[in-house]
This record gives sequence, C-alpha cells and structure tokens, in this order.
Amino acid sequence: MKEVSFFFDFSSPFAYLGSTQIEAVAARHGTRVRWRPLLLGALFKAVGTPNVPLFAVSEAKRAHYLKDMHRWAEWWNVPFRFPSRFPMNTVKPLRMVLAAPEAERPKLIHAIFAAYWVKDRDISDDVVLRDIADSAGFSGRDLVAATQDDAMKQRLRAATEEAEQHGIFGVPTFLVGELLFWGQDRLEFVEKALNGWRPKDE
Amino acid sequence: MKEVSFFFDFSSPFAYLGSTQIEAVAARHGTRVRWRPLLLGALFKAVGTPNVPLFAVSEAKRAHYLKDMHRWAEWWNVPFRFPSRFPMNTVKPLRMVLAAPEAERPKLIHAIFAAYWVKDRDISDDVVLRDIADSAGFSGRDLVAATQDDAMKQRLRAATEEAEQHGIFGVPTFLVGELLFWGQDRLEFVEKALNGWRPKDE
Repeated sequence: MKEVSFFFDFSSPFAYLGSTQIEAVAARHGTRVRWRPLLLGALFKAVGTPNVPLFAVSEAKRAHYLKDMHRWAEWWNVPFRFPSRFPMNTVKPLRMVLAAPEAERPKLIHAIFAAYWVKDRDISDDVVLRDIADSAGFSGRDLVAATQDDAMKQRLRAATEEAEQHGIFGVPTFLVGELLFWGQDRLEFVEKALNGWRPKDE
Repeated sequence: MKEVSFFFDFSSPFAYLGSTQIEAVAARHGTRVRWRPLLLGALFKAVGTPNVPLFAVSEAKRAHYLKDMHRWAEWWNVPFRFPSRFPMNTVKPLRMVLAAPEAERPKLIHAIFAAYWVKDRDISDDVVLRDIADSAGFSGRDLVAATQDDAMKQRLRAATEEAEQHGIFGVPTFLVGELLFWGQDRLEFVEKALNGWRPKDE
C-alpha cells in the first residue's frame, strides 16, 4: 500500500488548503496520510529562500496570491480567512504535534490549522494552544509543556532536516514513494502517482 | 461571447505549455482565444521581479521546476525539451507576431513556441526566424524586416504596458472578463470562469 506523506507547517496558507483535501485524496486510493511537520523558516534558511516569500514578490504578484488562496478555498468549499497576524511563529504548535501520539495527530493538526487560517487565533500563544489542544481532546497542559522539551525541539529539527534531504523546499509537499510534488495545486498529480504514474523525469 | 485573453512571451516554458491547451479550452466553451504577446523581461523590470526567476530560486526549487515542466508536458501529452539556449532574447519573434495579420497569428505563434521549446532553435536569429515564418506560410523576409520597424517596437511596448495595467506580473496569464488567472496550472479555474464562475474575491 502506497502511503502519501504530507509535509507542512502551520505558517503556510497553501499548506492549510492542502490539509483540507489530502485525506480524501488518500482515501480514494485506499491509502493513508503520513503527516510530517517541519519548521518552514528553518527550511527556507537552509535552502536559501527569503523568510516570507509572500513579502519578497512584486506587489502585483502578492495581490494575485491573496486572491488565489481565496479561490482555492472557494473551489474546495472550505473556510478561509487571511489572519491578522502574519507571518506567525509556529515552532510551538509544531512541537505539540510531535509530542502527541502519532495516531492522534490528525485531529490536533486540523484544529491548529483551523485556529490560525479560519479563526484568526494566535497559535504562538501558550494559552491559545492549550485551549486548542483541550478542545481537540488532548491534555493541553501536557502538550504545551512538551513544547519546551529538548526532545521535541530536537525532533522538529530532525524532521526539518529530513525534509531538506528529500529535496523539499516549501509546503505543502506531497511524497509518494520517491516522487515529490510541491503545492496544493498539484493534487491531481498526486492522485495520478497514487494510481501508479511514474513520470519519466524520475 | 466571453473571449479568453492569453498573455505570453516565448521565453517561458509555462507559457509554451499553456499555449498547447488554451485553444481546446476555449473551444469547449464556444469562445475564442485572443493572443496577447508581451515582453516578459520588460514586465519583470516594471514590476520589480528578477529577470530570470528560475535562476533566482533555491537549487532544490529550480530542480523541482524543471521536473514540473516535464510532468505537465507528459500530463498533456505534448512534446517538450528544455532548450540549450536559456534565457532567450525574444523581442524579435514577439514583434514578428505583432506584424502578422491578427487572424493569422496563431499558426505563427505555435510555430515559434515549437521552434524554441521542442526543436531547440535559436529564435533570436533572423535566419531562423525567417525560416520559421516561411514554413508557417508567411513571408519570412517581410516579417523579419518588420522587427526593426519603429511601429512594431512601439506596439510591443504598448502591449507590455497594457498587460502591466491589468495587474499582470508573469506568463502565461489568462484574462476572462476582468478575472485574471496566472499559470498553466490554473486552466481549471479558467474553465470555471468561462462557465460563469465569479470568485468572491473580485
């Protein structure tokens, strides 16, 4: 059974959009999603990309990207609101995910994505994070405490380095076998890969 | 009848890929394509984008873009070869297009795109351009001569400025009514717009 890895950081609107679709895609192909958090800022630094690409492009392109995000949300009929706090420091919620049992992570991940990209909450704030985790059925106190564990810090660094070693440079990125697809707008390619497509370039 | 404008420069692999599909998309919706050449280098300069974006991104991202181009060609079953000469100065072939009668332009445009993105020809060279135009049923001598006309130079500058005024910052860009879509990977959005979709963001 081919699984599909979903590499993400909560800081990216396109990762949020992709997160709303990937489970349905995987389910259509009888497979599962492996959720793989990474710290996008550290990845950008490692590969040499501006820290907030949305701020590094022309005014016209930035305006178009903002429209494009809303169009994808409309296309998929999912809620979306560009947050009042952007960019966002996501190191704590990412560590929280890594502190949760792997089988339980999806509900926490969706709750954090929605808190930031739908409900405009400050997901760098311990009180907010605790509330999100509690509401999703976790012990918020334990998960927030875990964000200061050296083990979780190291786990997130390792996850980010592993992504870089796969050739990943942004999110969302999908990995099917050795095939890497970047962007929520490549889900049709992901589906084709789950159907056995092997493009000649690989 | 809604028409769809296709803004392009021969310098872009993604514009080539889009050019292979847009007529079929338009035909499915009972409409026509308005081909709108522009000088991408001048547009980039005007909006403040690096002259060759493919060279301005991380090594990992560049490698992925190159795979992505080939995947789209495979997806659409069209020939594609990354040219040995890149970037390419395309000011002459763009002026040639503007010198041809509007109704006859599509066959010239496809011939020039194929010369560069399939046959690896030097489309900055007068001898090559003359041959391409002759083979496509034009007077190559006249069209090459027209590339030095002040009227054609001015026409290309005006076309590029007009694109900028529409908020265009790259190619291919599709315009349906006032709706702008950037990228060959947004053709599904273009189709939906031709079906009457008006995203809320506009």
